[in-house]
Amino acid sequence: MWGIELQRRHEVPLSRQIYQAFREQISMSRLKPDEALPSTRELAVQLGVSRSTVCEAYEMLLSEGFVISRQGAPTRVAPGLHLDKPPAFHMPDEPQGKAPVVIDFGTGQPDMENFPQALWGRLLCKAFEDMPLSMFNYTGPDGLPALREEVAAWLLRSRGLKADPRDIFITVGATQALHLLTGLLLSDGREMLIEDPCHSGMRKALQGEGYPLRPVPVDAAGLQTDLLEQKEACAVYVTPSHQFPLGGILPACRRTALIRFARENGSYIIEDDYDSEFRYSGAPVSPLYAMDPERVIYVGTFSKIVFPALRIGYVILPKRLHAKWRRLRVYADVQNPVLEQAALAEFLKTRKLDRHVQKMRRLYAHRRAELLLALGQTFGDSWRAWGDASGLHIALEFSGRCFDSNFMSLSREMGLHITPVEHHSIMKGNHQDKLLIGYGHLGADAIEKGIGLLHDVCRMLYKLGARG
Amino acid sequence: MWGIELQRRHEVPLSRQIYQAFREQISMSRLKPDEALPSTRELAVQLGVSRSTVCEAYEMLLSEGFVISRQGAPTRVAPGLHLDKPPAFHMPDEPQGKAPVVIDFGTGQPDMENFPQALWGRLLCKAFEDMPLSMFNYTGPDGLPALREEVAAWLLRSRGLKADPRDIFITVGATQALHLLTGLLLSDGREMLIEDPCHSGMRKALQGEGYPLRPVPVDAAGLQTDLLEQKEACAVYVTPSHQFPLGGILPACRRTALIRFARENGSYIIEDDYDSEFRYSGAPVSPLYAMDPERVIYVGTFSKIVFPALRIGYVILPKRLHAKWRRLRVYADVQNPVLEQAALAEFLKTRKLDRHVQKMRRLYAHRRAELLLALGQTFGDSWRAWGDASGLHIALEFSGRCFDSNFMSLSREMGLHITPVEHHSIMKGNHQDKLLIGYGHLGADAIEKGIGLLHDVCRMLYKLGARG
Repeated sequence: MWGIELQRRHEVPLSRQIYQAFREQISMSRLKPDEALPSTRELAVQLGVSRSTVCEAYEMLLSEGFVISRQGAPTRVAPGLHLDKPPAFHMPDEPQGKAPVVIDFGTGQPDMENFPQALWGRLLCKAFEDMPLSMFNYTGPDGLPALREEVAAWLLRSRGLKADPRDIFITVGATQALHLLTGLLLSDGREMLIEDPCHSGMRKALQGEGYPLRPVPVDAAGLQTDLLEQKEACAVYVTPSHQFPLGGILPACRRTALIRFARENGSYIIEDDYDSEFRYSGAPVSPLYAMDPERVIYVGTFSKIVFPALRIGYVILPKRLHAKWRRLRVYADVQNPVLEQAALAEFLKTRKLDRHVQKMRRLYAHRRAELLLALGQTFGDSWRAWGDASGLHIALEFSGRCFDSNFMSLSREMGLHITPVEHHSIMKGNHQDKLLIGYGHLGADAIEKGIGLLHDVCRMLYKLGARG
Repeated sequence: MWGIELQRRHEVPLSRQIYQAFREQISMSRLKPDEALPSTRELAVQLGVSRSTVCEAYEMLLSEGFVISRQGAPTRVAPGLHLDKPPAFHMPDEPQGKAPVVIDFGTGQPDMENFPQALWGRLLCKAFEDMPLSMFNYTGPDGLPALREEVAAWLLRSRGLKADPRDIFITVGATQALHLLTGLLLSDGREMLIEDPCHSGMRKALQGEGYPLRPVPVDAAGLQTDLLEQKEACAVYVTPSHQFPLGGILPACRRTALIRFARENGSYIIEDDYDSEFRYSGAPVSPLYAMDPERVIYVGTFSKIVFPALRIGYVILPKRLHAKWRRLRVYADVQNPVLEQAALAEFLKTRKLDRHVQKMRRLYAHRRAELLLALGQTFGDSWRAWGDASGLHIALEFSGRCFDSNFMSLSREMGLHITPVEHHSIMKGNHQDKLLIGYGHLGADAIEKGIGLLHDVCRMLYKLGARG
């Protein structure tokens, strides 16, 4: 009946089904311009529905301009509505047959098994109960005031860093901080300088849609500040507490040189402090920020000390950048959700986060020791660890080896997920003999098994090389 | 003693206080390069702290390169660490003495008083309890699969829109969807076409850091598709269900013309469906998306039907854009937090959101009627309402009036927050006689009082005009 097949008991109301059927007939030109639709009474009888259902469908067609109605005349099809069916698009086939990952040595993964889930649940419930109605509405791009206060207090007690809570802006992790900082700082084609190697994800967040980044080489002590050229640079991106990926602590002389460079060139310094809570041989390294809070932009995250899906980080901004930051944030995504911010503020205020971090520091130190032990037992003295004993990963040098694409495909085949340092290099070729091992999320058995797998891969590659 | 004043019982451990004091002395050159520090034993006695506290401080200075230590020799200051104090920055004074807002006729504000807070709390708790540990980790840029399924089901039953859940990507509100769409679609300097007038916030989200946007005029029926020029355009941004701000429903003939334009020019259409749930005179208008899912990108949000601080929206993307979208999302902010996504999925699944929307639709319809009544009683027939009866705001035309900066300053002074349509216009001068009134969040008393205030402002401006 008019090509209408009604599905009773369907999610879509009958009136909308009638509307959709007519709309399709009209678009496909099965109903021509000026053709009359049946009367509502007639159609209702034919379809076995109430007349008001048909009226509703006609009302929809009318208000959207598919049909025209004049007092006393039948409802007619409007002109100019023919449209060919859209061409179908076929997704390219997914590459298949990926080997399953047996051991994942990926970096930046905290342990989740030991997260105090029940406590976090209670903090969420309390935060929800205490939340005033006004916080269901927009509360602005700066972040929850209580959380900004608590982050300032936490920075003071954990790193001796003094920050004004009004300079602290909550973000969706460090990634968003870097994403927005690019827009904030890049101007007039001035380049941004970044460490090389540098976390490829952070580099892509900074790069956005192709902004100019210039690499500056890193050695065992971090950014080589003597290689900074006196060129126009809007900012320098550094990880001074624990260089990612090589692990160096930027020494005081280079810190001083970096601040001088920034002052002389009118540049900002972006200090990404992604994991300094987990230092195993002493107190956390002091942030560069303290040396010049009007030049240094400090970026921190709770992804590693709370959990990644929390999506809360922060940035400490010089006052002259506040207004532009707020603008950028509002037009990027307005603000963070409030509930997790409130729960995190309470987690900090009660010092329960401090206790969790202490516990995890001991656990990660233990895992690091187990990793080093397994490496020694398996690889003898053919390797050395780079950098400071901190964080959730380690950079290893195997002198004379080359961790290239052959190595990568064989590891993948064997179920080993592991990242060569070269993956994070911009100028390729300087770190081919180094691997990164993320160990924070792995127990002793997995670590041992993973190092065994790594040894198998190396042995097979060596044999393959000898045979070929 | 060496300029060190310790604050016992302070948040910052004594060792870090000692470290910080030395660091400052060194930076200020009060301790010169190569100068010897006291022995740890000597300093411990002088400061009245344990020797291990001093050792810890020296260890920090050493690991960060502020001092140099050789076996058997005293610890000495490293060279090259002098740094002038950073110049102080003074914030410009804030403009003061803003009059308090008495009545806020701002647009896009849902009512919060009637939000089922307790129910939402239960949904959050349940979502948290059911959440597997794996969801505390990164779960990818697409969004929670359960929520994508529920959004698809909701779109089908509320608007008859058929969408594949795999094409639905969760975002941080509609704002982030537009922010990322710009990066996704703009290429080779091809312009984006937008409605004029158009929500100024959404325009800024699309514009990013200065991308090219070209305005296309809007009339009472929405975008004037006959003014679309056959020019290279990467995308056309439209609000076809309820044009913001003027309120028109884009008629079928223009929809057809728009789809044809997009096909002929290889453009995408961005359909922003920001409030079509709240239609008072019939069923929600059907989305343009249904006409060509490979050309139309549908943007939706839960900010208005749940609450703004939830920060959940979504975008339905043609398959050929999926891969690039994921890349952009990962390097913008990785993903949404998971908890609210899970709670919202349950809110949808249990149909409790449907019931809430129905309830709010009745409430908003009632408020709209009250607003129209108050306008009639206060302004007689000197005004007319534009657009379809839906959403949380209304556009009013007062023929012959001009709502300019005088009007704005006087309203502000009187405590009335109200937005002229011209605020959202790109080409100025076409809508000076129109005002926007957001009423969704206001009770009958506030509406009446606000219209009274508006009348006062108009009367005073008229008198001022006569006197001047």
